[in-house]
Formats: sequence, structure tokens, C-alpha cells
Amino acid sequence: MTDIAAHPAIAASRYAERLEAATRLIEDQGLGALLVGVGPDLRYLTGYVAMPLERLTMLVVRAGAPVVLVVPRLEADPARRSPAVDSGAVEVVTWEETADPYELVAAAARLDGAGQRVHRSTTVAVNDTLWSSHLLQLQSALPATQFERASAVTRELRMIKDADEIALLRLAAHAADRVEDQIAAGRLVGRTEADVARETRERLIAGGHERADFAIVASGPNAASPHHEASDRVIQAGEPIVLDIGGFRDGYASDTTRTLWPTGGDPSRMPEPEFLAAFDVLHRAQAAATATVRPGVAVERIDAMARAIITEAGYGPNFIHRTGHGIGLEVHEEPYLVSGNAEPLQAGMAFSIEPGIYVEGRWGMRLEDIVVCGSTGPESLNRSALDLRVVDGR
Amino acid sequence: MTDIAAHPAIAASRYAERLEAATRLIEDQGLGALLVGVGPDLRYLTGYVAMPLERLTMLVVRAGAPVVLVVPRLEADPARRSPAVDSGAVEVVTWEETADPYELVAAAARLDGAGQRVHRSTTVAVNDTLWSSHLLQLQSALPATQFERASAVTRELRMIKDADEIALLRLAAHAADRVEDQIAAGRLVGRTEADVARETRERLIAGGHERADFAIVASGPNAASPHHEASDRVIQAGEPIVLDIGGFRDGYASDTTRTLWPTGGDPSRMPEPEFLAAFDVLHRAQAAATATVRPGVAVERIDAMARAIITEAGYGPNFIHRTGHGIGLEVHEEPYLVSGNAEPLQAGMAFSIEPGIYVEGRWGMRLEDIVVCGSTGPESLNRSALDLRVVDGR
Repeated sequence: MTDIAAHPAIAASRYAERLEAATRLIEDQGLGALLVGVGPDLRYLTGYVAMPLERLTMLVVRAGAPVVLVVPRLEADPARRSPAVDSGAVEVVTWEETADPYELVAAAARLDGAGQRVHRSTTVAVNDTLWSSHLLQLQSALPATQFERASAVTRELRMIKDADEIALLRLAAHAADRVEDQIAAGRLVGRTEADVARETRERLIAGGHERADFAIVASGPNAASPHHEASDRVIQAGEPIVLDIGGFRDGYASDTTRTLWPTGGDPSRMPEPEFLAAFDVLHRAQAAATATVRPGVAVERIDAMARAIITEAGYGPNFIHRTGHGIGLEVHEEPYLVSGNAEPLQAGMAFSIEPGIYVEGRWGMRLEDIVVCGSTGPESLNRSALDLRVVDGR
Repeated sequence: MTDIAAHPAIAASRYAERLEAATRLIEDQGLGALLVGVGPDLRYLTGYVAMPLERLTMLVVRAGAPVVLVVPRLEADPARRSPAVDSGAVEVVTWEETADPYELVAAAARLDGAGQRVHRSTTVAVNDTLWSSHLLQLQSALPATQFERASAVTRELRMIKDADEIALLRLAAHAADRVEDQIAAGRLVGRTEADVARETRERLIAGGHERADFAIVASGPNAASPHHEASDRVIQAGEPIVLDIGGFRDGYASDTTRTLWPTGGDPSRMPEPEFLAAFDVLHRAQAAATATVRPGVAVERIDAMARAIITEAGYGPNFIHRTGHGIGLEVHEEPYLVSGNAEPLQAGMAFSIEPGIYVEGRWGMRLEDIVVCGSTGPESLNRSALDLRVVDGR
């Protein structure tokens, strides 16, 4: 309820600042333009949210020119209400149902329009999640232009979260925590994974998420598959469940994992010593990796710390994925906590720390919190207990 | 409950047939390969479902070679369980966290691998919804290759739904119908659009949708904006609400629109004659456009029929979008019911028929059903009443 009393939001004035910062990066990197279709980059730069569809919506940012948002006419109204347009930082240009929006973008970017040959041979950056159908048509409309990934520009901005963004990530994390706790407290034994996944999605939406993107419910041997799709397998007493859930609340992502163990109230179905010992290793690995976080530390050090503890215990080959990923307007974004990423941590970076141990055909376990790099150390955004959740589950 | 008793599904054997048909189209069109990342084309061809993410998953289809699915190692297990792999029609190739999957795809396609120069200069097709970040990296890995949109191949297959697909679309439509009816029967007056949208999403999920992608709740003057985003506006008695909702159930999309009018129990808040007359025009336009549907008729004829009736009544300039879009594994797909699309209708095509009338600053209305082209005429998949829903709403 304190959540609602002090509901965070991104101030409209932030978008003009972000657009100015993006324009400076475009100049620094010698880019002709930044072309941003519907998706997280567009939301970050303008606050405009729409579904990615076949009709092109595209923000055109270049140095020394007004920022333009090209939109289908029937979406003109929501586009005009978006914070960046409403506050005057972006102009809207609409296109009719039978027009060619790619030519319009080319003209707006002054990259290939009639009589505009100055910028013909140049490099433009397009947002990473833009559909290929749009990129291929842009490449046709701008045949002499080189295309690059916009993440080279937007990562610099989006990786460092401001206080409002962190508050929004915290709200999303707490909402996911509550659902983890609700599922752990409810019936599990005798239900299918798919049914528990359905309940998880329903609870995420009821708790304020606008989207429940994933609900991994991996029971027994299925827990050995990190990205298991919830199936019709019936959950038994005396086996683990990896519950990895998330989605979006107010545009910011949640992503948290707990490992549950329902006993069905039968003391003979408690976890065996081997599982408990492995879980202790996992728990220590997650905590030690988190404790590594502070500005200046190479991102890969977090991965190395978790991996060292798990490897020392003999489970190195069973930890088959990176330790984590950045999180914000996307569930997975930069920085990636993977060997080879020597980028130094900066205050405001937010990411998952989620080691796992997987024994094929038998069991699996994973623990995941969202952690922010503070000015002196880590701050976990989750508050749900990280212990193995040995529950009744009847 | 009959829904559950006879739950439709795509038989595993269908995927091999679809892959064979795709391979024939690749040969017919002289393509070197079809490269399909996570998304609706991949689901259509293999039954494999995953989240589109930064780690590349890619199906490689080419004539005279085994079909290969390149996947991150940590997703090997769900990939192997997918119907096309499980039934032996597709081989899985995995890549480790620190490997380059684009080189792997190039090698699998034998398009640019060491010593494989035969296919160096050729054309490949990539799925329309593939992220640009993946396409740009494929273009780097295959510099002498031309890239095209895969919809040239997949549209031919996906546009014509078989009986199981139609049954799945019907299930999704009926589930959306029930939510339209539930919202129409509930409280509306005094609630925000956003709150009604939240309830709509919650009910879609509770009713079996795995995703509730959109819930347009556009009240009063907001109803004049076809793609209005549900806002904090409080719904009043005596004004229209355009309720356009949908998402996915078992992978197939729902998308239906009804127009509601809450009176708050106050007889003085009934719709005014001008609105009722316009609604009658809209209702007739939707019905007449639907009645046009039969094999051989040009797709644009459906649009022309709806537009003629609305134009005759003087609202032509107020019908600012095409009449509809195909629907299946995507909410919007081919065929598009738009002027200029002379493609003949074929039995098995499924699409929305959704004319609207929008008077800026005052009101709006839209009616949308999902319609299948049967062998002799139209079949509406929805069964919720198409009338103006004059409701109490208290």
C-alpha cells in the first residue's frame, strides 16, 4: 500500500534530456541518424508505447534537426499524447493507410529524399528489436546507407538507471516476490506445471503487472532444463520445482526465481542430503556473487565468483548458463554477466544474479534476484526469502 | 465445456508436411535458404515456442538437406521436445554461451562456411519478425548474400488455415466473446479505462488465454482514436466505450471489438439519435462486408463494401482505417483487407472485419468479428451479439 502512496514515474521532462543525450552520442559516433521503431528504445526515448506491428512507427533522431515520430494516422492520437510529443520535444508526422512509410522515414532523415544527396552515403542505427521486415524495407528505401545496431547508442543511456527507474524495477520485483510467496503457500502436489503457470500469470496480472511474459514451472527432472516450458507433467511430493516468473509492471521488467520443494506433508518426502548440500552451494554462490557488486568491478567478475563456488563443489559442468543479464525496459538487456565481458560496473546498473545447478534426468535448482549496483555496493530489489522453500503443497 | 471435451490441437505429423511445403516454395522461388528465428513462422513450421531474445534460435531450411534448428544450449531440452524435432523432421544443433551462433547458421546453411563457396552469392529469406540485431549480424556473417522477407514463402502456407487451426481460432474467439460479455455486464461508470483494461486482461488469462496482448478501453471522446491506450479517464454514464480486446490462446490469436453504452440506470443518458443512426450504418456495413466473403472474391472487395455503406451515409472521412487483417498465429497477418489488395479469397483464410466511425473530439464506434472464408461463404467465429450494448454499468 506504500507502493501506491508513492508510485514512481518517469517525469515528462526526462524524455527531452534523453533525446539530447542520444543526439550527442549520435554525433560522437558519426552516425547519420538513429531510427527507432516500436519497442523499449522508443519507450525510453519518448515514453511512447505501442504494439510492434506491420504498420511502421519510427522515431528519427539526427543532429541539428527536430526529432520526428512517423506514425500511422490511426495511431496519431496516442502518439501525440506521449510525453515527449506532448512536451514539444518530438514532432509527429502521420501516414495514410495506402502510403509508403519507408519513403517518409527516408525523407524525414533527409537520407535519400529527392534532391537530398548530402547524406546519401552514411551510417544509420536501428533499434535492436525492430522487425526485419521493416529493416529490409528501410534498406531498400536507402540503398546507399549502412545499417548498424542502435544498442551502440542506447546501451550507454539505458544501462544506467536513474532513481525513478530503480523505484519502478523495485515495484515490479516486489510484485513478483508476492506471487512467488503465494504460489509457495498454495497447492502444488497433484497439479500440472501448466496449471501452476496459469495461476502464476493470473496472479501477476491481478497484482498490477500489465504483462506476464513467462512462468517457468519446472518440476522434478524438468527442473534440469533452465528454460523449461511448463508442461502437462503432474507435480509430485518430494521433488523440486524451479519457479522463474516475470513480466512487466509500468513498463519495467520483473524476473525472479525461487526453488520450491513440496513434501505433501509426508516427512519421508523431505529433500535428500545431496540436494540440500547442492542447494547450500547454490545459495552461497548467489550471495557471494551479489557481494561482489560495486562500481569499477568488471561485470564478468560476478559470473566468475558464482562459478568458482559452484565449481569448487564439483558442480561446474552443471552450471550451464551465464550468471545474469541486465534488466529494465527489457527482461534481458545489457550488461550481460558472462565470461569475457570486462566492462566495469557503474552505479545504477541493474541486473539479475541467477546461478543454477542442473543434473540431467534428475533435478535442478536456481536462485535469482534483481540487484542494483549502488555507489558503494549491491542492493537487492527482491525481498522474498532465498532459502529452499520446503512447503506442504497439499 | 464442450470446448474442453474436444480440445483441438495441431497433430505432430503436420509439421513435417509444412516443412516439405516450405521447401517446395523455396525451390520454386529460387531461394538459397529460409532462416526462421523465434516467432510465429517458427511455431508454424516446427511447433517450437520460445521467447524472442538476444540469444539466437534459428531454423535453417533449404532444399536437399536436413532441416536444422540452431539453439542456445540451455534451451536444448525444450527445443528437442518440440513436435517437429521429437518426430524426427528437424535436427537440433546447440551453441555454448560464448560461441558465435551466426557463424553456426552460416555453416548450417552452407552459405559462407570455410570452403563452401558454391552458395556464396545467393538469396535467403528471414522471418518478418526476426529482430534487426539478429539480421544485421547475419548480414555481417554472410556479406555476399541477399536477404528477403520470408513472408513471400510463409504467407502462402499460413494464410490458408486447416480445420484444426480454425478450431483453435474459434476457441480463442469464444474466450474473448465471454470476456466482452462479462465486461458489458459489470460495473463501468466511475471506473477508469485503465482499471477496466486490467480487469479485461485478468479475465482473458483466467479464461484460458496465455497472453492478453491488448485491451483497448476507449470511452467518450477517446473512442474516436482507433488505437487508444486505456488511460486514467473516468468512464461516465451516457457515452460510448469501444472495447477491443485480444491475445493468444493455445498460440492462436483473438481480436474482437464491441461498442458499449453505459447509462448508469438513467433514462436521460440513453444514446442520442445521431449516435444510434451512425451505429445502424456501422452494423449494416459490418454485416454486408461479411456477406461478401466467398472464395474468388478480391480481398479489397470486403473493404470496398464496408466503405461504400459508411460513405453513402456521409461518414466516409470518419472511417480512417482498413476494414481488417488476417489472423492466426499473429494478431495481424496476411491477408490485409485494404484497397489495392486484389488477391482472391480462398477457403480457409481467416481475418477480422472491423469497420469503425470516428468523430474527433466527440465519439467513436467499431464492431469486429473474426470471419473465416468457407467453401461457399463466410463463417463468423464470434458469437457475442454485435448490437450496440446499452447497459446499466453501475
